[in-house]
Amino acid sequence: MIIKKTISVPKETLIEDGVKGVQKQVLLGPADGAPTFTMRQFSVNAGGYTFFHSHDFEHEIYILKGYGIARKDREEIPISADMVILVEPNELHQIVNNGTEELVFLCLIPNINE
Amino acid sequence: MIIKKTISVPKETLIEDGVKGVQKQVLLGPADGAPTFTMRQFSVNAGGYTFFHSHDFEHEIYILKGYGIARKDREEIPISADMVILVEPNELHQIVNNGTEELVFLCLIPNINE
Repeated sequence: MIIKKTISVPKETLIEDGVKGVQKQVLLGPADGAPTFTMRQFSVNAGGYTFFHSHDFEHEIYILKGYGIARKDREEIPISADMVILVEPNELHQIVNNGTEELVFLCLIPNINE
Repeated sequence: MIIKKTISVPKETLIEDGVKGVQKQVLLGPADGAPTFTMRQFSVNAGGYTFFHSHDFEHEIYILKGYGIARKDREEIPISADMVILVEPNELHQIVNNGTEELVFLCLIPNINE
């Protein structure tokens, strides 16, 4: 059994074209011996956004704090704390923080992609 | 893309020997088309507890609210909000709410076991 405080997990700032104001933490994953899937936590600053992209694996997302928008191909859906999102494989998606406070969410993926 | 408020997901009260004061919600899983793993949310009343058992698959747990104890074979570890737990396959485990408020956590498992 591995137990961690999330605050103890290092934060990586994503610095790439197409992403703004995003920090990532790998809370549980292959490095911990997790066999199947990986739990990451993302913090998005006000005005920030994740990649607008698609890939062949799913996301399972839980919004912990804040509010924003889940963008898909032709639609934008308001999101806020205590909502969950399934992003299906090969589906275009982006999380946008159009609010005034930090947006924090868990995003889990199958291990092979981490 | 599937988006839900967690409050909209039905709660099932677990009524079995070895479990007390526990409600379960399947937030995202095979019924939603989730291909690999399932996100469940558990609420444990003050004085309640989950099964003390083991199985051949892992748990990835995120504590959302409250505090309690993670029990393993010969050890009890205090847990509280914003902690994560990896329960490894075949490891004895139990979550106990020895606090005075509701303990709420996410517990994810590989799909084949849901």
